Amino acid sequence: MTNAHELGLPERVPAGDDLPAEVTVWEVGPRDGLQNESSVVPVEVKLEFIDRLADAGLTTIEATSFVHPKWVPQLADAEPLLAGLTRRAGVRYPVLVPNERGLDRALAAGVEHIAIFASATETFANRNLNRTLDEQFAMFEPVVSRAVAEGLDVRGYVSMCFGDPWEGVVDRAAVVAVGRRLLDLGCSQLSLGDTIGVATAGQVGALLDDFAAAGTPTSALAVHFHDTYGQALTNTLAALRHGVSTVDSSAGGLGGCPFAGSATGNLATEDLVWLLEGLGVRTGVDLDRLADTSVWLAGELGRPSPSRVVAALRG
Amino acid sequence: MTNAHELGLPERVPAGDDLPAEVTVWEVGPRDGLQNESSVVPVEVKLEFIDRLADAGLTTIEATSFVHPKWVPQLADAEPLLAGLTRRAGVRYPVLVPNERGLDRALAAGVEHIAIFASATETFANRNLNRTLDEQFAMFEPVVSRAVAEGLDVRGYVSMCFGDPWEGVVDRAAVVAVGRRLLDLGCSQLSLGDTIGVATAGQVGALLDDFAAAGTPTSALAVHFHDTYGQALTNTLAALRHGVSTVDSSAGGLGGCPFAGSATGNLATEDLVWLLEGLGVRTGVDLDRLADTSVWLAGELGRPSPSRVVAALRG
Repeated sequence: MTNAHELGLPERVPAGDDLPAEVTVWEVGPRDGLQNESSVVPVEVKLEFIDRLADAGLTTIEATSFVHPKWVPQLADAEPLLAGLTRRAGVRYPVLVPNERGLDRALAAGVEHIAIFASATETFANRNLNRTLDEQFAMFEPVVSRAVAEGLDVRGYVSMCFGDPWEGVVDRAAVVAVGRRLLDLGCSQLSLGDTIGVATAGQVGALLDDFAAAGTPTSALAVHFHDTYGQALTNTLAALRHGVSTVDSSAGGLGGCPFAGSATGNLATEDLVWLLEGLGVRTGVDLDRLADTSVWLAGELGRPSPSRVVAALRG
Repeated sequence: MTNAHELGLPERVPAGDDLPAEVTVWEVGPRDGLQNESSVVPVEVKLEFIDRLADAGLTTIEATSFVHPKWVPQLADAEPLLAGLTRRAGVRYPVLVPNERGLDRALAAGVEHIAIFASATETFANRNLNRTLDEQFAMFEPVVSRAVAEGLDVRGYVSMCFGDPWEGVVDRAAVVAVGRRLLDLGCSQLSLGDTIGVATAGQVGALLDDFAAAGTPTSALAVHFHDTYGQALTNTLAALRHGVSTVDSSAGGLGGCPFAGSATGNLATEDLVWLLEGLGVRTGVDLDRLADTSVWLAGELGRPSPSRVVAALRG
């Protein structure tokens, strides 16, 4: 008998040939996590957080957002944050950019990777972007074309891919159409988001099948699950079995609604890494250092991490 | 577009031919859940809880335990509970029985379904049963043979099937050997427990493969996952894909350690049902009534349910 999980790791037993050998964990904690915190975290704490994430082996760390500070005051410090960031070789620091003004700010800050965010539904496009579903592309087109011309890499988030709080179940053909248009504009990768966390494994597989049928390579697809209904990790495994190898998550499960007793935030990076380590899928993430980071940040935020693994290893 | 989850249900999209058409949810909340509560719940509340679970469509409700009250004071009211229970046609109310004294009490109370609990590891057999791994069978033998002779159905729990806090990773051959001995004694079904919640999907599949290789039909196997490391639902889906169709869970995720900030208890029945409804697997459970029951019980216990689905639907 070995004693793997005394070391804080699960036993390694692959679960099928259909899994990727390696997964890129797209860490969204500093952006998607902290933008949902009720309090504004000081820039020094954010910089230490990002640095610790890189120490823990994360190679893609979504750093901040150039959305107008009026909408996301939590990330109003994007400029000082990027100015203070020690960029490391082999680590990407994408930032969210909503429009050309945001792109100007990103270029001025020396950003190399940006992400735009689109909606799969009419209602959410209207509520989140103040555009129709169709109009959103007119807003993105100059952003992506200028960014690509400047040599930037552009990711396209697609929100509400499975369910929408106003429209209910979302038509898969509509999601594929939105995603294809973003790729046609010049996005290198889509992040398919279950923004309200309602999806189950069958929906995930069906959407990925539909993208494949439309000719989209799985390397151009990432998944972004929220654990609102407890399905995030199960959905992730379904996506991996459909060839996806980039998974969004946030350290410690940051991004929950602090007012709800339960965590309903992003998939926790630690819970994801526990699964992937167990399956023998390489991530390059040092779980021990990552859990320490989440415990430290939880102290800064004044509330416990909703990650099950963090609670189990450090609770 | 339909609007399924406005009704509190996910979109129904099957995820493969390898899934069972129907799953029996083995509800362990009144026993495995409440025995881990720090406070003792009044018998009237327990009776209402069990009644509401039956109203919600659960057909197997593990009601209580005949373990000595010194060890589990939370369930010291097993006799009055069973005396007060209105048994319904089509609903099973199994009770936990540790030894012949417990069996006597169960028979006197008119119980028809019992469960014994064994350990897959030497250390846990010693700590939980005060027996060696081998000696535990000598304790179970007269219990099972008498119970079967009296026409009772006997389930065998196997604890620590994947990891043990003292021994680390558990040898699968040892788990299969313990399980086979329980079946040979006369148990009709094994419940394979990840007592400390460390397992990942590959381990689950490998253990089930080993049971199959030893000639055990999947109908004789159930799974019992704890969400300590966030893997319970993903492990459950792995088990379903290996032919298992009985899954243990507790309403509202009861059974966590109330002192830990995060929930590390049983898989929540609501989270399980959300997945199964989404996959088009029949459970007979009315999610709406079940969530109401968990919210009501959370009020009685004075703390929120750790189920993500309960929080999402009722938070």
